[in-house]
Formats: sequence, structure tokens, C-alpha cells
Amino acid sequence: MSQSAREKAIERLREIGREIYLLSHVNALLGWDQETYMPRAAVEERAEQLSVLEGMIHDRITSEELGELLELLGAEAGNPGGSSDLLPVDRALVRHVYRHYTRQTRIPGDLVRAIARQVGVSQQVWAEARKASDFSRFRPELETMMELTTRKAEALGYKQHPYDALVDEFEPEMTTARLTDLFDSLGDRLSSLLDRISAVPQVENDFLFRTFPEDRQRAFSRSVISELGYCFDRGRLDQSTHPFTTSLGADDVRITNRYLENFFNAGIFGSIHEAGHGLYELGFGEEIRGNLLADGTSLGIHESQSRFWENMVGRSRSFWEYYLPRARSHFPGVIDDIDLERWYRGINRVEPSLIRVEADEVTYSLHIVLRFRLETALLSGDLQVGDLPEAWREQSSSLLGVVPESDADGVLQDIHWSMGAVGYFPTYALGNLYAAQFRSALLRDYPGLDSMIASGDFKPVLKWLRQKIHRHGSALTPGELCRQVTGGGLSADFFIDYLEDKYGEIYRLNAD
Amino acid sequence: MSQSAREKAIERLREIGREIYLLSHVNALLGWDQETYMPRAAVEERAEQLSVLEGMIHDRITSEELGELLELLGAEAGNPGGSSDLLPVDRALVRHVYRHYTRQTRIPGDLVRAIARQVGVSQQVWAEARKASDFSRFRPELETMMELTTRKAEALGYKQHPYDALVDEFEPEMTTARLTDLFDSLGDRLSSLLDRISAVPQVENDFLFRTFPEDRQRAFSRSVISELGYCFDRGRLDQSTHPFTTSLGADDVRITNRYLENFFNAGIFGSIHEAGHGLYELGFGEEIRGNLLADGTSLGIHESQSRFWENMVGRSRSFWEYYLPRARSHFPGVIDDIDLERWYRGINRVEPSLIRVEADEVTYSLHIVLRFRLETALLSGDLQVGDLPEAWREQSSSLLGVVPESDADGVLQDIHWSMGAVGYFPTYALGNLYAAQFRSALLRDYPGLDSMIASGDFKPVLKWLRQKIHRHGSALTPGELCRQVTGGGLSADFFIDYLEDKYGEIYRLNAD
Repeated sequence: MSQSAREKAIERLREIGREIYLLSHVNALLGWDQETYMPRAAVEERAEQLSVLEGMIHDRITSEELGELLELLGAEAGNPGGSSDLLPVDRALVRHVYRHYTRQTRIPGDLVRAIARQVGVSQQVWAEARKASDFSRFRPELETMMELTTRKAEALGYKQHPYDALVDEFEPEMTTARLTDLFDSLGDRLSSLLDRISAVPQVENDFLFRTFPEDRQRAFSRSVISELGYCFDRGRLDQSTHPFTTSLGADDVRITNRYLENFFNAGIFGSIHEAGHGLYELGFGEEIRGNLLADGTSLGIHESQSRFWENMVGRSRSFWEYYLPRARSHFPGVIDDIDLERWYRGINRVEPSLIRVEADEVTYSLHIVLRFRLETALLSGDLQVGDLPEAWREQSSSLLGVVPESDADGVLQDIHWSMGAVGYFPTYALGNLYAAQFRSALLRDYPGLDSMIASGDFKPVLKWLRQKIHRHGSALTPGELCRQVTGGGLSADFFIDYLEDKYGEIYRLNAD
Repeated sequence: MSQSAREKAIERLREIGREIYLLSHVNALLGWDQETYMPRAAVEERAEQLSVLEGMIHDRITSEELGELLELLGAEAGNPGGSSDLLPVDRALVRHVYRHYTRQTRIPGDLVRAIARQVGVSQQVWAEARKASDFSRFRPELETMMELTTRKAEALGYKQHPYDALVDEFEPEMTTARLTDLFDSLGDRLSSLLDRISAVPQVENDFLFRTFPEDRQRAFSRSVISELGYCFDRGRLDQSTHPFTTSLGADDVRITNRYLENFFNAGIFGSIHEAGHGLYELGFGEEIRGNLLADGTSLGIHESQSRFWENMVGRSRSFWEYYLPRARSHFPGVIDDIDLERWYRGINRVEPSLIRVEADEVTYSLHIVLRFRLETALLSGDLQVGDLPEAWREQSSSLLGVVPESDADGVLQDIHWSMGAVGYFPTYALGNLYAAQFRSALLRDYPGLDSMIASGDFKPVLKWLRQKIHRHGSALTPGELCRQVTGGGLSADFFIDYLEDKYGEIYRLNAD
């Protein structure tokens, strides 16, 4: 292929990519508006607007023209980046587009439509079943959904385990075998840490349930995330039922949150978490600006950014050394009697619980290990949908030491499976692992990290994250990024070591 | 053509129309967000998003397929509704689509692009020239814009006057000859009314410039427009620099406003004005729901709805009989000393002024007559762009009795010409004429209108407007609608009579 033909092909690929990029942002605006300001009665037509836009995006990413361009550029299974004569950034783009083109063209149209229809049904039945705390009502719909999900995995293809095909959607190149290794060691060591914590006196945190007026929480959140580096010229903080982050443009990354007047943690840590996602999307480099590579490289990496800021920065002692006096001014008279030590231990209280979304830093990942084990067993046929509630109770007992009394607090608690989002859960725990491994690399460059944070100087941290992680967007796969930043492949050790250090100290586990 | 072929064609026309309808609402969301909540730095990519969406809408409305469908359905210049075998609502749709297809395909693509480019340049130069109050800087750009506008009129085609082709975009079937008649009598009689008002003592309105806190104005606005029938389940009231109304869905019509803390009128009458536009768009009937006919039939008719509620209801004595006590509670202690009579006369104070957007009910239309005369003279070649400032001063003197000292307060005050929106101004005055003519028909059905309003019962009025006007959307042309509602063609008499009655009484012109 001549150089000029290749240049023309890559140019056209960029054009199509740019249009998909713009339409995706328009689509994101429709979604953002729906969750924030849209009037109630508009919901029906909004669904149709979204479906027209999604159809247009899908048509473009699966078009024959795109297939021909990818072929012309030499992209194929063994060499997704195409011709080696291309510039590295163009090879990354070809690889990225090839990945999406391949995934989306492999799933037949009738299967896509069948899944979409089933999501509509399953979600509604799930909500009803959860309300009635009755898994048997949800069971037939989940069976259908799992059948469709299995067909999807077969259509996508995989080497070892059908679950590989599913998890790859959210975490490119991750495999079931690799996850099993990571999550087995995570499960064992976290369960053991939890046992040790449960054996010593609990820390108090009742002061977190005092009254924190909503408008003051909002103002405090805004001031904190501004100082972390979230810029309101390029973003917004609004309210919605469920917090989320969404990109409506290269310079328009909005976050939402909700506040509980009688529980301090929900508001502020929610804001920091979403700001972490936002900072990632606002940090894509000039080289990939405005094209499809300006996107998180995986949900696990995305989650690493939110968890890093929320937990490893936001729940650190040094962070509150700086912010506790500021929080006292924002909530006059509410927490004047709480010193740094009580505060720090209180916000980090560990307690095995039934509900994932309310879990603390230590137990959270155990909830994920549980779901991962059940999902993979369902996909391999080792577990039947009808046996899920019992399997859930067994895993919950062995990992967390608690057993749900009702389906609502057990197998029915999450919306994900009703949406066919199988393979999604692992990314939450992967986020913790990546975050801790990145933190350990950051500490090598900045051994004085704690005192920087304690003085409210977050700039070097953000700069480091931008330079090492954010700017690459999807130009590096999660695996490439991890190796480049940390010098090695993903391991659970960094996260477990971090937790053992932190909580060993909080709960005085090593004192005798 | 067989019946089934025709049914298939009309079905396909509806489908394409539905997609255009949905995309237009998505486009409207991009615009709404830009004016309300969008972060500052997002402006550049937003322009590109808008341009992609607009391109998609334009491609659909000018597609060959649509042209063939219209031909199949028998639509042509002499018979835009197509085959007489079609249902009336389908004929209306064919006519509507034929109109847009014809207008948009007649303008060559290079002219469309040239105008778009020139708008970008002209608008910026206009803003600078206005700031410097120096018409000579704007003159070359306006000359170019008028050349392009003339080319546009030639491309569109017209029978008598090139201006006909332009005004038809905003007010279908309206002609320059007809406007000249209407506006000549309007100009003469309003100038004379203004002379009589200027000869008697002025009414006081200094109390309108007291302090009305913004949040209370907002709450008062919300409660007023709710009572008028604007439903917040299907709409919103937000703030923006310039008030506007926009439809984002059949059940999603949003309005915006701005408030001046030291001038009462701006906020409340702005809210009622926009709610009037909103009520029109929320009132389209079931028969046309969700298709392209669910749209205002002209800007003049649209403006009739906003002006009716703002001026003929909102600035009436009976309205404030009901609302003055409520306003007193919303602004405690601010206007307790003002009785209904002083209040009513104050909010209706008439004063010839230089600036259109600040004009009162009597002088407003004179500003429009002035612009109409200059626009038509420019188009016919009777006036050169270079002579505009002088022509402006002459017309201002003869119509309003005031002469601007600077270009900023004269020929440079409006943005419209810099945007190539020639033929737009007349619709503002047409709105007043339609509104008064509709009001006179309403009074025939409800002679007790005033006492209904004084008791806060607005339901019968809204019901009447919905039944007679709103539900038809674009299924009737403005001319058809006017005849059907009022029994005759548009006349300036109703409006002038209404003003002479109202202001004769306010200024005691007939007392001696």
C-alpha cells in the first residue's frame, strides 16, 4: 500500500472517529440532563432520542467503510495496530477502533436487540423482586438474561473461559484465570485481616451521624475538589440520585453527587470519588485530544483514579490534618469536640456488612470477590441460577462472616445482572489494586507525600498522575500502562500491604 | 398511484419526519445547555457538536429520498399538500415538509456556507463596532451580508419583492405589500397616540426601581406562571443572559429568564412572556403529537402567545387586582404603600425611547415599523448600507420623536442584521396584531374575561387558546389560523383600538 493511500485512509479513520467522538458527547449530554434537570414527563421521548443517537453511533462504528479502512491499514487479530509504518499514536487509534469494530460487529443484530428488550424486562422485574425480597420472581428473567449473555460470549469468542469475552469489554485483555489468581489471594488475605480487626475493640464514629446541612456539604465539597485540581471552568458539580461522572466534551467533564444530612461520609467522599474520575478525563494529553483515544483505557483504571483520591488521599490522616480545621469552619459547632485522631479512625471504621455500596475500604473488595466467583460459575455452568441465593449466602459467610437474611440484602442487591452487565464487578476491585500499585510508584518519586498532603499541596500528585497515567487515555492498554508506571504487572500485594499497614495502625493490631 | 404505495410513502415520510423531530430536540438541548449550565471552556467543542447535528438535520430535510417521496405524494408548488386522497393531517404534514424541503434545497450549498462564515465575522465586528459606537467599522461587513442576503432571496424566488422571500421564512405566506399596509396604518395611528400621551402629565413608576431580591422574584415568577398553567412536570424555569423558550421534547418545553434586582418589570414580565411561548408549545394537539407539525406555525403567531399573556393579561388592571396582594407578600414591606391604581399605571408607563428591547406596549411596534422600512428599502436598492445611520435617525424622529445621538443607541443596537436575519423583525409587531385580534375573539366568547382574571381563574383562557390556536401547531398556516379563530384576515385595527382604549384611560386622554 502506498504511503499516500495509507495517509488518506488514516485521515478518513480520524474523521469518522471524530464524528463518533462528538456524537458520543451529545449522547452523554442527553444522559446527564436526564439525571439532573430534565422534567419528569420528558422521560419517554428522551429514551427515543437516546436510541436514535446510539443507533447513529453504532452504525458508524460497525460500518462497512470502517471495516475496509481497518483492513487497508493492516489491522488484524494478531496485529490490531495495523501497519508498522504508522505513527505510534495512529497505531494506537487503529488498535482502539479495531477493538470496538470487532466487538460490535461480532454480535449479531438480533442478539443485540434481544438483549436490549430483555434488559427492559429484567430491570423492571428485578426492581419488583427486590422490593418484595423474592428471588423466585426474578429467577426466570435472570435465566433468560444469562442465556443471552452466554450467546453473547460465544459470539465474541474467547480462548479459555466464556467469561473472558465479557470481562474484556470493561477491562481489555484481562482474563478469568488472571482474575482468579488475583482475587483468590485478595480474598484470603482480606478475610484474615478482617478477622483480626473484628477481634479487637471497635472505633467510634457516631459523630459522623450528626447534622451536616446539605448546602454546607455542597460548599465544602466544592472547595475540596477545587483544591484537588478539579476546575469548574471545565466541569460542574450537580446533584443526582446516584453519583456519576460524564464527559460532554474535551473541556466539559461533569460530576454529580448526593448528600445525606445525617451522614458525613456519603457527601464528601462521593464528591472526591467522582472528582477522581473527572480529573482522569480532564487529563488526557494534547497528543490524543479530541479523538477516540481520549477515553479511559478501562473501567479498572478509571476506578483506580477515583479510589486513589477518595481512599488513599481522602481517607488519609494527613488529608484531615489539613482539612479537619476547614471542615470545622464549614460546619460551625458540629464537630469542634472531635480531635484528628478520633476523626481519622472514625471515618475509616471497618465493619463487615451485607451491602456492597456501603462497604468500607477493607471489606469492599470481598463483596467483589463474592460476585466474581458466582458470575464465573454461572458462565461455566458450574452453578445454576436457581442455586444463586444459597451460593451467595455461602460465599458471604466464608468471605465476610455475615449472612443475609433476605434476598433483598443478598443476591438481589445489585442492578448489574438485570442489565446484562456481567463481568463488570471485577473492575471495582481492580481499581483498588491499580490504585495501590500506582501509589507505591508515586511514593518512590515522592517519599514526602504525606507532608505534602498535610500542607494542602496536591499539585505534585495531580501532575504526577497526569504525566504517568491520565495523558495516555486509551493509547496504552491497562496492562501496558501498569507496567510502564509501576515496572510490573498487576499484583494484589500492594493493596493488601497498604490495608494491613493502615488498618493495623488504626486498630492497633500490632501493639501488644 | 395505488393506495398502498401512497400509504407506504406517507409512512416513510412520517418516519423521516420523526427522526428530524427527535434530532431537532437533541439540537435544542445542546443550545439550552450552552445558555444555562455549560462550563465556560466547553464552548469550542459545543459549536462543533451543534454543527454535526445541524448537518444531519439538513441532510435529512434535503435528501433525494425526501424529494422523491414528496413527488410521489403529489406535492408541488400549486398544491403543496399533495394528493387530495390523503387525510387532512397528512396533507398538512406533506405541505409542511414540502415547504422546508423546497426552501432548503433552493439555496445552494456554497451560499449556505458563505452565509454561515459571514455570520461568524459580522457578529464579531458588529459587537466591536457597537462597543465603539462606530457604524463605519460594521459597514463593510453589513454590505457583504446584504449582498449574500440578496443572493439568498434570488435563490428562494419571489413574486413581487425580494423581501417576500425572506419574511416567508419566519412568517409563511406573508408579503411585503401586506406588511406595508399593516405597518403604515400602525405607524400613523401609534405615532398619533404617542403624541397625545406625550402632551399630558406622565405617570409615576419610581417604585418599580426599589429593591426586589432575586430569589423572591424567581419564586414569585414560578408561582405566577404555574397559576397561568405552565406545568413544571413538563418544563423548567432557569436563568440565562437572554430569556428564551425552547422545546426539547413534546413534554419538555423549557423557559429561561433573568432578573434585575432594581427593576421589577424585567423579571416578572419576562417570565410571563416566555411562559406564553411555552404554553403554545405545550399545547400542541394529540393529532399532531410527536411529528413535525408540532411546531409553532410562524414566529408572529408564537409572539402573539407571549405578548398576549405578557401584556394583555399580565399588564391588565384585573391581573394585578389578583396579584398585587400576592406580590406584597413576596416582597415584604417593599410595595405596601402602592395602591392598585398607582401600580397599574406605573407598570404601563409609556415613554418614547431609543432602545427597542426596553420599549413599552405603545412604542414597541414603532421600533419595528422603523426597521421594516429600512430593511425593505435596503433589499429593493432604494437605500444603501452607507446611508443607514441617517435613515435610522430620520425614521426614529418621525415615528418616535426621538433621535439617537450615537450609532450604538441607533442603527447598531440589534444583533439581527449581523446574523443575516433580515425579515425577522416584522414578526415581533405581527405578534401584537395577532394577539389583539385573538383577544377580541376571546372577549366575544368570554365577555367576563376581566373578572375571571381578577379572581385568578386563568383556566378558561388557556383552554380557549389551546382549543382555538395551540392544538393546530403548524397544521394551519398563520393566515388560515387567523381566519378560523377570528373570522377575518389580519388587521392592525384590533391592536390599535386596544391600545387607544387602555392608554386613553391610563393617561385620561378622553377626560376634559
